Amino acid sequence: MSNTDKNHQSNLDAALLALTLDRIAEHPLHLQLSESLRALVLTGHYGGQRLPASRVFAGELGVSRMTVISAYDQLIAEGYLIARRGDGTYIAKHLPHLVAPVSRPAPSTQMTRPFLPFHPGIPDQTAFPHRPWARHLERAWRAPEARLLAQADPFGWLVLRAAIAAHLAAWRGLDCVPEQVVITAGAWDGFDILSGAGLLRGQRLAMEDPGWPTLYRLIEHAGLRPVPLRIDTNGFVSTRIPERVANAVVTPSRHYPTGIAMPLARRLELLHWAKTQDGLIIEDDYDSEFRYQGQPLPSLAGLDGLRRVVYMGSFSKLLSPSLRIGYLVLPEAHLNPVRAYLSAIGARASLLPQPALASFMESGEFATHLRRMRRIYARRQAWLLQELTPVSDLLDLRPDATGMHLCLSLHPKLRAATTDQELAAQGATHGLSLRALSTQAKLPDPPQGLLLGYAGFTEEQLAQAASALVRLLRYSARHPGE
Amino acid sequence: MSNTDKNHQSNLDAALLALTLDRIAEHPLHLQLSESLRALVLTGHYGGQRLPASRVFAGELGVSRMTVISAYDQLIAEGYLIARRGDGTYIAKHLPHLVAPVSRPAPSTQMTRPFLPFHPGIPDQTAFPHRPWARHLERAWRAPEARLLAQADPFGWLVLRAAIAAHLAAWRGLDCVPEQVVITAGAWDGFDILSGAGLLRGQRLAMEDPGWPTLYRLIEHAGLRPVPLRIDTNGFVSTRIPERVANAVVTPSRHYPTGIAMPLARRLELLHWAKTQDGLIIEDDYDSEFRYQGQPLPSLAGLDGLRRVVYMGSFSKLLSPSLRIGYLVLPEAHLNPVRAYLSAIGARASLLPQPALASFMESGEFATHLRRMRRIYARRQAWLLQELTPVSDLLDLRPDATGMHLCLSLHPKLRAATTDQELAAQGATHGLSLRALSTQAKLPDPPQGLLLGYAGFTEEQLAQAASALVRLLRYSARHPGE
Repeated sequence: MSNTDKNHQSNLDAALLALTLDRIAEHPLHLQLSESLRALVLTGHYGGQRLPASRVFAGELGVSRMTVISAYDQLIAEGYLIARRGDGTYIAKHLPHLVAPVSRPAPSTQMTRPFLPFHPGIPDQTAFPHRPWARHLERAWRAPEARLLAQADPFGWLVLRAAIAAHLAAWRGLDCVPEQVVITAGAWDGFDILSGAGLLRGQRLAMEDPGWPTLYRLIEHAGLRPVPLRIDTNGFVSTRIPERVANAVVTPSRHYPTGIAMPLARRLELLHWAKTQDGLIIEDDYDSEFRYQGQPLPSLAGLDGLRRVVYMGSFSKLLSPSLRIGYLVLPEAHLNPVRAYLSAIGARASLLPQPALASFMESGEFATHLRRMRRIYARRQAWLLQELTPVSDLLDLRPDATGMHLCLSLHPKLRAATTDQELAAQGATHGLSLRALSTQAKLPDPPQGLLLGYAGFTEEQLAQAASALVRLLRYSARHPGE
Repeated sequence: MSNTDKNHQSNLDAALLALTLDRIAEHPLHLQLSESLRALVLTGHYGGQRLPASRVFAGELGVSRMTVISAYDQLIAEGYLIARRGDGTYIAKHLPHLVAPVSRPAPSTQMTRPFLPFHPGIPDQTAFPHRPWARHLERAWRAPEARLLAQADPFGWLVLRAAIAAHLAAWRGLDCVPEQVVITAGAWDGFDILSGAGLLRGQRLAMEDPGWPTLYRLIEHAGLRPVPLRIDTNGFVSTRIPERVANAVVTPSRHYPTGIAMPLARRLELLHWAKTQDGLIIEDDYDSEFRYQGQPLPSLAGLDGLRRVVYMGSFSKLLSPSLRIGYLVLPEAHLNPVRAYLSAIGARASLLPQPALASFMESGEFATHLRRMRRIYARRQAWLLQELTPVSDLLDLRPDATGMHLCLSLHPKLRAATTDQELAAQGATHGLSLRALSTQAKLPDPPQGLLLGYAGFTEEQLAQAASALVRLLRYSARHPGE
């Protein structure tokens, strides 16, 4: 043994003697010992050195010999130690410099933050019937029926699909059977399913512009090519769809973000286009349950008799965005390819909320909740418009028959002084979450306006925020270019 | 008016007179009327015809004139009817033949089916503490804390991420902070995140062969190219990775499906490879919590100090496959790109289970459950091996230190008479879910064996199924080629 080796060996001895075992801990002594030894080996300083004989080491540590033997055996099995018959136990050589202390970031705080007014698309979660909902969850899972624990249908829990079909018949004039409903983990899942099942010929998808920017990203993410088309005052114009595009995604009940409801003539035109193209239309119906005047127009899918239209719905706006549950209603002809795709790739929607949501809907509590929210949201919209009357010369204060946000155009006087994006940026410094209409477009020369979500905020919050907005608009109109 | 027109008009009159309204229903009369009229218009038979004056029609129906006016107004707004000033109300022409009765499939029954023995990878859900779990769910959501309703962190609920970090330190020797944990909606989400955030240079991913076929599909689905490499008796061989492949996904704790634990030397070799390639390794650790002998090997990510290894975990095996909750533990350097990606595309894991799972873990019930299941599964494995002793000449009855299934090689005597795929096909006709090892490989000349999941089945079920399997194997060995 050279001097250097000797020095190392004595270092190892010192390190071994420094090991302390906690005799009171529940953690067995041999595990404590193997963990400490492993850590020592992983320092990389002792490769090739011999460990004390188990009897000696046990005496030094004041533990039984079995404890040491167990720890050595474990580490031999793991390859950290090497047993040489008739010689002793050695620390494995060849522990490279890879082994290093853990690299980890400084702890941060939870990244959640409250929604500021006028964040659009947020339901009022404080008005949500949390207790009944939690009770439905508890009841569904405290002694789950056998079918819930069996191999799941990739289309989702049939009872929920039946509840959705009943809801659509009552609220959206859509006549379908539960077998046509596929539970999804959200809009992204819906597009992925339609794309993956090969239902979107040519993989090009016309969409409205302005539109929902996230939708654009989701479509791209699903391997599809979005083709944005500028809308007119009646919404989407199917005659503008380029030749080689065979599919379209539209929000006919209430265009996002402008709120335009697509008139019947346009709907029929669009269905006609789909027929001549042998294409598919995706109807994204995201908040039309909240209609304050008149009856909702029946869904496009209902008008079509579910032949060339896939209906896409969500519970994000009706319950909570974090539920991550949506659904597709499919034309019969598309059921088999979708089933084949989902069987191969696996369903992505969590089963957890599904039985609870089904009983919540079946009990009538869901419809009661929607009707109640409809009353609350109608009042909030009216309240917001009233609070904004001081700037009726700057914003086009037009009420909207549906939805959870207003999309208000800038009047020429305001547009001469500023832009919607400048206003949004200034709003942010005043605690306002303003969304500029022009940022919701991909095509050049977008319209200018402000999206003001009112659904998720109390009248008090709305009054305060409206008063801040009034000051901001007044100031901006008087100080162009600031 | 021509005779044909007259005939049509009288048909319309007849149809109108046949309308019945339900005066007791809660549904308002004007809505009932507009719905009936809309259906009539959509038949397409009456385009261009005039409806009776509201006063006349109200008299015929026995309702107030306002009811009729409301219904007409609604349908005029929708474009189904046209009002001609001073003339009357007409049914819109140009209702094309698109409008047709709903096309819908015949109702089917729920597509769930029970898992048959020896379906692998299924936890025993009857032994799951359903009541406490349901209580955690109820408590988390009956009066949810404000942060649960705020704008969610795309990395998931921090309390759950902290509970996972603590679990990994205790069970898997992995030292990380909650900020490094990302909650996912499952393995597919994990791969999509790593791919979408640009962490997998070259988008090629070496994987074990045989391996989990679903993994292969998930990798492809995430836009990555899987490169399967045949394993040897010590599992994955990093020296076999082709030059241009910079990433690998491995199951070092327990290779799927063979159960091989990767020895330390191989682990170090693999980490060395990743260093020289500046590549990334994904450690898929899917069921190593269920270890029956010795201590689990610390995770590869722990050995690496979380530099070039992403740890991928799941609750599918520990709780329920339908929860759809998994997680990634990321090296610090990769946190920012992942956050950017998830902020753009949105988190896909449902928030619903997250606070309940966090309190379930924090309360210690989760660890108690795992320890209990470990005892149960160990007993089941021993029981199954014992029940199979009559075919010890046909199958290699080797116990496995970990996991939820056995992967048993066919002895030469059996292999001379049949193949694992033939056995699986015959098993299916006897109510057995046998998985052939050779179907878990993509490369030619795969090994032959049977995967026998035991975790999800009672000893009685296992005894019955084992006896069926013994008969099947005996018969197959005696009757080659049948």
